[in-house]
Amino acid sequence: MYVSGPVYPRCLLAASLLSVLTLGSPVVAQGPSTIPTAVRTTAATLRSQALQGTKAFDIVRSLTVEVGPRPAGSKAYDAAVVWGLRTLKDLGFSNVHAEKATVPHWVRGEESGEIVAPYPQPVHLAALGGSVGTPEAGIEAPVIAVPSLEAVDKLGPAQVKGKIVFYDVHMERTRDASGYGKAVPARGAGASRAAKLGAVAVLIRSVGTDHNRTPHTGAMRYQDGVAKIPAAALSVPDAELLAAELASGKPVTFRLKLGAHVLPDVETASVVGEIPGREKPDEIVLLGAHLDSWDLGTGAIDDGAGVAIVTEAARLIGQLPQKPRRTIRVVLYANEEFGTSGARAYAEAHKDELARHVMATEADLGAGRVWRIASRVDPATLPLVADLARLLEVEQGNNEAGGGADIGFLAPAHVPVLALSQDATAYFDYHHTSNDTLDKIDPKDLDQNVASWAAVAYVAAEMPGDFGRAPEGGGRE
Amino acid sequence: MYVSGPVYPRCLLAASLLSVLTLGSPVVAQGPSTIPTAVRTTAATLRSQALQGTKAFDIVRSLTVEVGPRPAGSKAYDAAVVWGLRTLKDLGFSNVHAEKATVPHWVRGEESGEIVAPYPQPVHLAALGGSVGTPEAGIEAPVIAVPSLEAVDKLGPAQVKGKIVFYDVHMERTRDASGYGKAVPARGAGASRAAKLGAVAVLIRSVGTDHNRTPHTGAMRYQDGVAKIPAAALSVPDAELLAAELASGKPVTFRLKLGAHVLPDVETASVVGEIPGREKPDEIVLLGAHLDSWDLGTGAIDDGAGVAIVTEAARLIGQLPQKPRRTIRVVLYANEEFGTSGARAYAEAHKDELARHVMATEADLGAGRVWRIASRVDPATLPLVADLARLLEVEQGNNEAGGGADIGFLAPAHVPVLALSQDATAYFDYHHTSNDTLDKIDPKDLDQNVASWAAVAYVAAEMPGDFGRAPEGGGRE
Repeated sequence: MYVSGPVYPRCLLAASLLSVLTLGSPVVAQGPSTIPTAVRTTAATLRSQALQGTKAFDIVRSLTVEVGPRPAGSKAYDAAVVWGLRTLKDLGFSNVHAEKATVPHWVRGEESGEIVAPYPQPVHLAALGGSVGTPEAGIEAPVIAVPSLEAVDKLGPAQVKGKIVFYDVHMERTRDASGYGKAVPARGAGASRAAKLGAVAVLIRSVGTDHNRTPHTGAMRYQDGVAKIPAAALSVPDAELLAAELASGKPVTFRLKLGAHVLPDVETASVVGEIPGREKPDEIVLLGAHLDSWDLGTGAIDDGAGVAIVTEAARLIGQLPQKPRRTIRVVLYANEEFGTSGARAYAEAHKDELARHVMATEADLGAGRVWRIASRVDPATLPLVADLARLLEVEQGNNEAGGGADIGFLAPAHVPVLALSQDATAYFDYHHTSNDTLDKIDPKDLDQNVASWAAVAYVAAEMPGDFGRAPEGGGRE
Repeated sequence: MYVSGPVYPRCLLAASLLSVLTLGSPVVAQGPSTIPTAVRTTAATLRSQALQGTKAFDIVRSLTVEVGPRPAGSKAYDAAVVWGLRTLKDLGFSNVHAEKATVPHWVRGEESGEIVAPYPQPVHLAALGGSVGTPEAGIEAPVIAVPSLEAVDKLGPAQVKGKIVFYDVHMERTRDASGYGKAVPARGAGASRAAKLGAVAVLIRSVGTDHNRTPHTGAMRYQDGVAKIPAAALSVPDAELLAAELASGKPVTFRLKLGAHVLPDVETASVVGEIPGREKPDEIVLLGAHLDSWDLGTGAIDDGAGVAIVTEAARLIGQLPQKPRRTIRVVLYANEEFGTSGARAYAEAHKDELARHVMATEADLGAGRVWRIASRVDPATLPLVADLARLLEVEQGNNEAGGGADIGFLAPAHVPVLALSQDATAYFDYHHTSNDTLDKIDPKDLDQNVASWAAVAYVAAEMPGDFGRAPEGGGRE
């Protein structure tokens, strides 16, 4: 289902969704539970207590209020690192530290757009992450619309040269985020595909399911050897306005001004903290989320929610009378949004330890309730996953989960993955927009996520056996 | 219910809602219908045909796409006048003409705001209509919050002097728009009330029911003899962010830059067109809506919807095999939003004719379905209103309707009013924001409005008798 291609690197396109998009039909559980009763009982208690209320909302409130927007390379991201170190220490984590990551530093600058003809109107737009800027006077050119990324390939230079190409791709609302995978290729690869034919800029209809005047940014990437042209997303109502002007049959002209530019790379950090294991402290259960956000919102659902979920899940486990056998490690990754360099740095720095990573899981799809657990584990251990699904009262997905953009880097080391699917029905109303703010999170839904992650992490850290090693494939390749 | 006061003129505060806010408990119908069967039958047919589909959505699409934002005094408003004249002529109206109105010309300019301390974050805000600007460098000052307009009066100059006062007033979502009347006084009068105590600027939580990053503008007014200080609305998520920073207990500082300023008054026009009556052409049934909009959105629900509803309702009546006895007059008023000068000019220009205005009705609350009909008619004719309620399959409201901001100017002449209450549940999610765009209108809901207005206007124009004259009170005084 996931649309990929040679010019379209997964790392820049929210590969966190890969797991969700490749799960297919559910696996039928084989045989009885193999989770020991005592472990299961404690996990069930952890879960039911978390469903009564957790500190997760306080954590994401603190991050969004005290730090707010924290894009890769910004000073605000450095403040997020300080926040992360302080928060994990305050919450009782051990071995709290920063781990170096070098990140790009793209800056949005001032931006504006307007339909010049036939009916002049200002529009709301946002440069795509990584886009070059326009000349200061802007770019004014005729507009041509295409319904998909593929459609542009059917045009010739005579139709495209000197024009602004408008990708009018509509995203479908789905619980499993599959609508995103279908709509997002135009965002990632649209600029270079149009530039090959001589386009001077591209506009896309926001990859989102809302009808708000809040454009959705997100990463794009230029193909080597192709002219770099500016790229921006129109909010959905503005895309519909542009489409309506085009439907008039009169020539449509658009003026685009983007102040986007790139500054030198920045050395910053991911944040790590642990609940050390009592028997096998060198065996790691990794809970990941990303600390950075896009610049437009305060990064509440993407990914303050994930930060809160994994932090609070680990903290609850650390509060148990007895620590689990293995170490729970929370990793708050630098720069998921703009190239996943934090995750790459983690995989490299810990390469000698990855064979002892017994399970990894990531929270990066907002705060909608968990409705499925998928996996990439030794198939012999699938009855364990089936039992976890019963424990969480959710469906069981297949065994082909990638797990997420950040933990995907652990796949070459065959680190087993448990992927908790969050309800994404409303997520893409707000994703990558200014509207990604604290009020979009329901505290009770967030608690349900904490309850799910805590139970799964506890079982993985406490049970005598493990999930073996993950089969080939999955992750990021 | 409607909160008013000496410093708070109704004309600047969407007095269109007055009717809705003062309806109270329903009147019990007295006696049988007095609408003749033939009239009632034709009205019912008009209504049922309109429910099958009308041209109303095409009309509002045309206005929002081809004109878009059209605030008082702008060149875009002049384009709206051209659009109105052309549209009414194209739709077959008679006596289509412009009627002079002089309007203010307030311009928003560039604007921005940010929380400077304790946690720096940019916010989304919009100057209130009529606000003065800030110096070019902006105003930076400590923030003090109050929960209501009245609360500021309890403070002393020592608490307020040199500060930015933040009115953190929350609006309730209601079907009948009553939440608006409770929340809006801080918008209209908040600046002067705070300036009396030495405040340097005011911020308000948007008067809206949404949680989008789309601030709600709207008119404010300065009290004579009090220093004019800048006033802006924060979007609801931004108001909640500011409240959260204040809740930290640390001093909060805010920087506000508003480029708002006033240009000379502009001479422009309302647009009028008629379906001439076959027997009593000098008796007028007036259907009103306003042609201007705020500058932020494309003016779809406010009041493109109203323009489309009354225009299409009249057009459908004009399409009948036989024109009604009396004249249906559609008035698309200039400048409802910024002082109702179009309505004032109409009342003055037509003063000799108002005694022959047998009924007036106005559509200015979006495109939600009509659920009630209220009135201000000779009480002896209330059985007619009861029969109209049955015809429309809606509740009957009381007999104290104002009718709307524009037709309120007809009250001194005792022009009877029929007020069709539209469902306002979602209206204040978008009202006066950039999000007031075409996609917020459901075409089927819009058709239900057309059906309701067409039936009511037809009955008023065709029945042998009339609604007498309206009792004292109501309107705008």
